[in-house]
Amino acid sequence: MNGAESLLRSLVASGVDMCFGNPGTSEMHFVAALDSVEGMRPILGLFEGVVTGAADGYGRMAGKPAATLLHLGPGLANGLANLHNARRASSPVVNIVGDHASTHARYEAPLTSDIKGFARPVSSWIHSSSSALTVGADAARAVQASMADGGQIATLILPADTAWSQADGVAAPLPVQAPALVSDGTIERIAALAQSGVRTAFLLRGQALQERGLRAAGKIAAKTGARLLCDTFAPRVARGAGREVVERLPYFAEQVVEFLAGTELIVLVGAQPPVSFFAYPDKPSWLTPEGCRIAVLSHPHEDGPGALEALVEALGAQHAIARINARTAVEFSPEGALDGESIMRSVAKHLPDNAIITEESSLAMAYSGLLETAAPHDLLALTGGAIGCLMPVSIGASVACPERKVVNLQGDGSAMYTLQSLWTQAREKLDVVTVIYANRGYKILANELKRVGARTDGAHAASMFDLQDPSLDWVALAQGMGVEAVRTESRADFDAAFAAAMKRRGPMLIEAVI
Amino acid sequence: MNGAESLLRSLVASGVDMCFGNPGTSEMHFVAALDSVEGMRPILGLFEGVVTGAADGYGRMAGKPAATLLHLGPGLANGLANLHNARRASSPVVNIVGDHASTHARYEAPLTSDIKGFARPVSSWIHSSSSALTVGADAARAVQASMADGGQIATLILPADTAWSQADGVAAPLPVQAPALVSDGTIERIAALAQSGVRTAFLLRGQALQERGLRAAGKIAAKTGARLLCDTFAPRVARGAGREVVERLPYFAEQVVEFLAGTELIVLVGAQPPVSFFAYPDKPSWLTPEGCRIAVLSHPHEDGPGALEALVEALGAQHAIARINARTAVEFSPEGALDGESIMRSVAKHLPDNAIITEESSLAMAYSGLLETAAPHDLLALTGGAIGCLMPVSIGASVACPERKVVNLQGDGSAMYTLQSLWTQAREKLDVVTVIYANRGYKILANELKRVGARTDGAHAASMFDLQDPSLDWVALAQGMGVEAVRTESRADFDAAFAAAMKRRGPMLIEAVI
Repeated sequence: MNGAESLLRSLVASGVDMCFGNPGTSEMHFVAALDSVEGMRPILGLFEGVVTGAADGYGRMAGKPAATLLHLGPGLANGLANLHNARRASSPVVNIVGDHASTHARYEAPLTSDIKGFARPVSSWIHSSSSALTVGADAARAVQASMADGGQIATLILPADTAWSQADGVAAPLPVQAPALVSDGTIERIAALAQSGVRTAFLLRGQALQERGLRAAGKIAAKTGARLLCDTFAPRVARGAGREVVERLPYFAEQVVEFLAGTELIVLVGAQPPVSFFAYPDKPSWLTPEGCRIAVLSHPHEDGPGALEALVEALGAQHAIARINARTAVEFSPEGALDGESIMRSVAKHLPDNAIITEESSLAMAYSGLLETAAPHDLLALTGGAIGCLMPVSIGASVACPERKVVNLQGDGSAMYTLQSLWTQAREKLDVVTVIYANRGYKILANELKRVGARTDGAHAASMFDLQDPSLDWVALAQGMGVEAVRTESRADFDAAFAAAMKRRGPMLIEAVI
Repeated sequence: MNGAESLLRSLVASGVDMCFGNPGTSEMHFVAALDSVEGMRPILGLFEGVVTGAADGYGRMAGKPAATLLHLGPGLANGLANLHNARRASSPVVNIVGDHASTHARYEAPLTSDIKGFARPVSSWIHSSSSALTVGADAARAVQASMADGGQIATLILPADTAWSQADGVAAPLPVQAPALVSDGTIERIAALAQSGVRTAFLLRGQALQERGLRAAGKIAAKTGARLLCDTFAPRVARGAGREVVERLPYFAEQVVEFLAGTELIVLVGAQPPVSFFAYPDKPSWLTPEGCRIAVLSHPHEDGPGALEALVEALGAQHAIARINARTAVEFSPEGALDGESIMRSVAKHLPDNAIITEESSLAMAYSGLLETAAPHDLLALTGGAIGCLMPVSIGASVACPERKVVNLQGDGSAMYTLQSLWTQAREKLDVVTVIYANRGYKILANELKRVGARTDGAHAASMFDLQDPSLDWVALAQGMGVEAVRTESRADFDAAFAAAMKRRGPMLIEAVI
């Protein structure tokens, strides 16, 4: 077998069976090998940000990496922003980046670039294979690296001749690092702190925000009176009716300050202390209240759910009754203008059980609390702040969980960065419903302009936030990529369109003009 | 004045009056300053690859840099592929990349990243301002750096507090490095070689491919019998009727070998020796014929046109009569299927004088020779091989040369990488006509699969090159972004649509289904 086959067979042997790709000439042997190797599903993206974003979404939902297949330095470069988000999400991702044949690199052909340089800011592991004989083993190492420390980006660079030369065979999978166990001493220390009568909040992230972690956290909160919190932009949160009550940190610094006022102890479970997303003149960046103590129950690479369960025992909270979100009928009135709140009321009303919500809209974020008492779902958010993320994350989430409805709540401005995602949704017939919050502008920036204390009355500045002149026609854009779409301008129309979309399968876009 | 104003005023003082931007919160003060500072024109792109590609096109045509305004590391990352192309085009570009305020960086907020790391592979000059007091001077240095060595990428990173803090004023422009003069000894040596009776080819690039350089090169060729050549992917070539005959190197290695067979001397004028774009098993990368001598008349940072003129004198070729492309009526038959050749015949037939052709389609490249006897024009090509380049380059070219028609000959696959370019063309009412070669696939890759000797019969591989299922509807995509569009499926329809587009002004897209 050649190196390309060795690569693919070794990836499959290590459990990687999904490849999101946008290949070029230097990856042709890998592409050809897709037909010789059983068990690897290739999905084409028409832009690399779609490819890496899809791998992020897949990693968040599958808990194991997909491979990406990218064309040299510029192909990787186009995928970097969503790899930044994936890194912040602790998503496992294995990038396969083709390179010029080793004999060709010296000639400085037009596509020659510093691929390792491009990879470095987002990758925890980078390796360039020097021979077809090591490609299989390098692939196994990349998969292992991607699963280490709670999920990382591993980038394997493969010169074209490592694909077409004779290889050694299939590499055996390498052991995956299990999350480190939290010591008994730490559990005892946190148990003592949590029972000391101080006003306590547990800030959860990672596995701690999935069902097992939440079950334990709910008992701890019930026993100690602590609040349970999650980050504004957590990679994945199990929430909705039947799940433990977890409060989401608000976005703006001054809101967080108010939200945390009076807290005397923050216990971190796989999370970092809350900080402001951006700095503003005369506003704080560090948002832990003055005098509040910070304690770490588990670091991101440690076993958060295990630590929470141990803490339940240490606290004797096994039988505590957690606060659970009750399912409540949402009020929805078709009267009034379509807006962020009425959209979310429709979503809450019609959301099927076990959906996946992908959220990249400040308006969706503002009203996401309305979903806490809706059908149980997972919420995936914009972990790294690099917009253009959740359109492709929706692809990966749907591929990982084909039986679950994916609802992408997406701003129009951010949707434009990776609108090519719609084509892949159409080709793969993914069950993704995209709601475009069409406010025809970067509305958050118009607001930020005021917040940073800058002049706000100028036409030039306004033109940089305004997506009118011309307005984007999302129905045309979606249909141009083969996705059925409808424009809605009233609450009743949106509600009808969204209800219908929840009852059918397959990709669909609803433009909500607000 | 604050740092943002100091920056903008210093850029304007240094001759930079165009800013392509996609700003975020950390750049808000710079955005606000656009309304306080006269003389800077901002143009919004809805994706950063549009922004950097537009700056490349502007640099190629204006001969001076535009500024980009990019949002932190991920914003820069989205623009890197087209900065790679701009670097290969020797385009001067000044990137302004916002960063978190210096007091905020330590908190590892979600958007924190290694901005210098992202910038390094494409930038010849990188600096992060440490204070508002130096921002103006740093801007002047960035402009100077962008104009050095024939055109470079300069990246200036500005923490948000350097924008909002009190600044020092406006920095004076710094002297721009003039192209280095080629020594008399080099001229004499090349003159002797060129008269030695060996079969000689001059390979021209950069300024040598604009009118002054071509005039001198034509006389040299006439006097010595040498061929004049240009790269397959030159940044900019003045060509068409009335211009000196310059042969374009073909794309594939074996074609270049045949094209150069018998050449005994290659004289480089701002160019590098020809190499294969990609490596293939059993095909050469180095394409200079065996035994052929390579001599350098001028390096890229040297004065190519001046060197050619000195060589004219040394050869006594002042009165030599150059071979000039005659204007010939192009044959066009409406019979037969619409294809690459018939499209180019229509283009050649209707092209107005002094148009700018931007080319990113292997089919357009294959028939570009038909334009050599059409109306005089500039040809801008895909210098770095990172696709998604010429859609935004067309924006920058049109902004730099608003009186000239821009005709973008664009493959459908490559157009998808930066299709957001159409929106900016609509907003700015640019006189850009985009011809989409809609062959519904990455046809070049299906061909490359054979060329690399890989298996070609598999369904998985075929699915990675195929843009059908669903087909892209370019009329819908263009209209979705406010650009008038028409689909043509016959030669007569295309010819009529293209003729009409040449007679009107403003953005237009013609989907040519082939």
